[in-house]
Amino acid sequence: MSSEPPPTAASASAADELPADLTAATLSKKQQKKDAKDPFAANYGDVPVEEIQSKAISGRSWTKIGDLDDAAEGRSVLIRGATQTIRPVSKKMAFVVLRQSMGTVQCVLVANPDTGVSTQMVRFATSLSKESIVDVEGVVSLPKEPLKATTQQVEVQVRKIYCINRAIPTLPINLEDAARSEAEFEKAEQAGEKLVRVGQDTRLNYRAIDLRTPANQAIFRIQCQVENKFREFLLSKDFVGIHTPKLISGSSEGGAAVFKLLYNGQPACLAQSPQLYKQMAICGGYERVFEVGPVFRAENSNTHRHLCEFVGLDAEMEIKEHYFEVCDIIDGLFVSIFKHLTENCKKELETINRQYPFEPLQYLEKTLKLTYEEGIQMLKEAGIEIEPMGDLNTEAEKKLGRLVKEKYGTDFFILYRYPLAVRPFYTMPCEEIISGAQRIHTPELLAKRATECGIDVSTISAYIESFSYGAPPHGGFGVGLERVVMLFCALNNIRKTSMFPRDPQRLVP
Amino acid sequence: MSSEPPPTAASASAADELPADLTAATLSKKQQKKDAKDPFAANYGDVPVEEIQSKAISGRSWTKIGDLDDAAEGRSVLIRGATQTIRPVSKKMAFVVLRQSMGTVQCVLVANPDTGVSTQMVRFATSLSKESIVDVEGVVSLPKEPLKATTQQVEVQVRKIYCINRAIPTLPINLEDAARSEAEFEKAEQAGEKLVRVGQDTRLNYRAIDLRTPANQAIFRIQCQVENKFREFLLSKDFVGIHTPKLISGSSEGGAAVFKLLYNGQPACLAQSPQLYKQMAICGGYERVFEVGPVFRAENSNTHRHLCEFVGLDAEMEIKEHYFEVCDIIDGLFVSIFKHLTENCKKELETINRQYPFEPLQYLEKTLKLTYEEGIQMLKEAGIEIEPMGDLNTEAEKKLGRLVKEKYGTDFFILYRYPLAVRPFYTMPCEEIISGAQRIHTPELLAKRATECGIDVSTISAYIESFSYGAPPHGGFGVGLERVVMLFCALNNIRKTSMFPRDPQRLVP
Repeated sequence: MSSEPPPTAASASAADELPADLTAATLSKKQQKKDAKDPFAANYGDVPVEEIQSKAISGRSWTKIGDLDDAAEGRSVLIRGATQTIRPVSKKMAFVVLRQSMGTVQCVLVANPDTGVSTQMVRFATSLSKESIVDVEGVVSLPKEPLKATTQQVEVQVRKIYCINRAIPTLPINLEDAARSEAEFEKAEQAGEKLVRVGQDTRLNYRAIDLRTPANQAIFRIQCQVENKFREFLLSKDFVGIHTPKLISGSSEGGAAVFKLLYNGQPACLAQSPQLYKQMAICGGYERVFEVGPVFRAENSNTHRHLCEFVGLDAEMEIKEHYFEVCDIIDGLFVSIFKHLTENCKKELETINRQYPFEPLQYLEKTLKLTYEEGIQMLKEAGIEIEPMGDLNTEAEKKLGRLVKEKYGTDFFILYRYPLAVRPFYTMPCEEIISGAQRIHTPELLAKRATECGIDVSTISAYIESFSYGAPPHGGFGVGLERVVMLFCALNNIRKTSMFPRDPQRLVP
Repeated sequence: MSSEPPPTAASASAADELPADLTAATLSKKQQKKDAKDPFAANYGDVPVEEIQSKAISGRSWTKIGDLDDAAEGRSVLIRGATQTIRPVSKKMAFVVLRQSMGTVQCVLVANPDTGVSTQMVRFATSLSKESIVDVEGVVSLPKEPLKATTQQVEVQVRKIYCINRAIPTLPINLEDAARSEAEFEKAEQAGEKLVRVGQDTRLNYRAIDLRTPANQAIFRIQCQVENKFREFLLSKDFVGIHTPKLISGSSEGGAAVFKLLYNGQPACLAQSPQLYKQMAICGGYERVFEVGPVFRAENSNTHRHLCEFVGLDAEMEIKEHYFEVCDIIDGLFVSIFKHLTENCKKELETINRQYPFEPLQYLEKTLKLTYEEGIQMLKEAGIEIEPMGDLNTEAEKKLGRLVKEKYGTDFFILYRYPLAVRPFYTMPCEEIISGAQRIHTPELLAKRATECGIDVSTISAYIESFSYGAPPHGGFGVGLERVVMLFCALNNIRKTSMFPRDPQRLVP
């Protein structure tokens, strides 16, 4: 590949051709002509879009903001980032804070013929709109005092600055507003200052900006790590990752909470869980399977913890004798996830903590298992009466969670029914994030249960018949990825842990 | 936990209570009474379903068939598996081949009072239906000559055998029929023997049985490995795994191939790709993202390589200068996947190869990149004229694939357009499994293109607006998981690589 010279003032002047709403923040033609006479004009400017369309490979190497530290002092660097803040100090000096994902670095422009920086270049930099994408070439230096940027110990003395893509001058969300913690709001209020709050709906309407806050950058990296660890642990236990269809005939769980559609003229619906299919995979001889995939619930639940589409983490496995085999997997799995986050995602957790302070989830190396009876006894001793064979309501469940935390020092525990439970499954901990069960593996009982649940058995006959071809006893569990992240980071709304959440009101973006 | 004695003859007689269609293959009442007098009656029988419902944990340890080898000689083992074949030899002797996923082992029953095996027990074993789930306790021995089972070097001398779940006596698919290779059919035909063929539709109708063939067990383990390696490689390159909604307003790619539904009264559709959302994630500052998730296409394509729902492997990344940066990722990614399969999935590939013989996909350590011009020149020299600025049709593409393989010894290469292409994206041969591009990152051009593609821009306004908040140049690619497996294993139909495929005719199971 032929390499090309860096963009020149000529290309900078291509801003003339930019559409009206993008040029608002750019320099006037007159100013540009004047700047074109600047002997250092080649050191800055708008790069026309044509120049960025895979024309040439310069071979230059790019530095990550997160990699900058003291050791980089004196090094020349090339950085592409978003202009988070632009602060003119004088005609001859300005600061630009550049951001890349969770990291920011302060860039300093000081007009000086010796370094090729003109006052015109300083003006160009201060004319940039916030959140524009720019390339900065500069030299790393150590500031006299720590900076506000995440890369506190270094700054970049700018030699060249090019704008790759300008943001519109007035953004629907100011990133600083979106990134503030409750404590900052309180502090400002006490000082008589009124700061702008960005509501949940506004955030979600302009999610492409909202996602840039440090907390959001961290939340979805945590989410990715939860999924990775989920997969890694189960793979190490001989589970096979599978994918089952989301377009199905019939309804997977019954009830009204199902999205219906036409599939080539046939009535179809979206899977409310991979339950039937992961069980069929077990009947198909896979012994242990897991799936990570979307789950659809047409529920009209406008709560802080329900979504109409979420990511299900599901597993199903043969049981030799007892569903404790499933409990053991859940125990090992979640402890390994929690441990991984605690030990390897410190930066992300700290970042979330700065905007949304939280106590880290407490868990034990070996998950506490309590019988239902023991749970009831604990509640009883605390003055709460529960029917011995009845179900725990949300309030009792929460109370039990608090009692367990006090007594055993854990937020995470398994509550199981013993010796003969009302329901043939264990549910549980932490606001009932996980539910699981030993499943029915005989076709007759299955058909009976399905009918009792109001499901038209004819629509799931292939599923039921699967159990007449020789089916091993099995069990499994399912949990929402968004809920795990929400609970681990003690976030107050599940919409914070879904990149583009779907609730009864929200279908865009 | 209290441990419980193993099931007794009393529990064996619980078969009385089994529903009619399950008892067909079981013993008559009279016979059972007689067997109850057998002093060794506790060593075999049907285990009633109640006994398997998480009642007790015996602490016994289970052996995997795949782990059995010479070293196990003389060891007592406990195995749960499916009865693949049951062969009575005499009143006193029978063989049962037990299967677990890709492995089988021959179990031998020989009536002998010294080992606690009665003729009644042999009869019980031969009365079992194929594909029933049984527990066998026995002692590992070395047979005089190699066996037909996958665990050829050992067999199990049965001491106890319990049926956990009986399959119906006549299965809709005979597993042996479903597992035969074309060569076996030919050989039988030459010998004047007529073997049963199981058609694709029958296989899919009874997928829970069909999935048990060794080839199918291997195919979906390979699929899981492709996905794992895809994730692992991209994570090592600082990509973040994300999940984007499948329920969307508007259509992601335009055209008629979209499933429509009502979302709480609003018109909605299923995402035809995560394209718009992964780009919004890039606008949201994630730099590099990938997604593994379902993709929905309401196309009426009844071909060997189209599905209405498949698993998309998608990636999107910031581009500093040139889409070659994307090509480099594709290169490294696919070579790492191919290498991993070749080196670490030998057993699975051999298993597939036994039923569906294939030449392993050939690839180079560094993927060959050819310009479009070079490609056209190669075709020209082979006597095929292509318009220099026109597109390659499928036939020309296939021909080029053959020419490249002859000349460079690779099935996998990147064809890119240079210097100014008709289309702003590169595509990839190998039946064009991968397609990718540098994307448009300015809102005006995007809106223009969308309109040209017949998309109602108002339905994707949130997407288009995302690019006005400061958007980095970026590009990406997408490929179907099923296609990668299909091509790597040279399978002739994509339905073979989808666990529960969806095509215009098929919505069940």
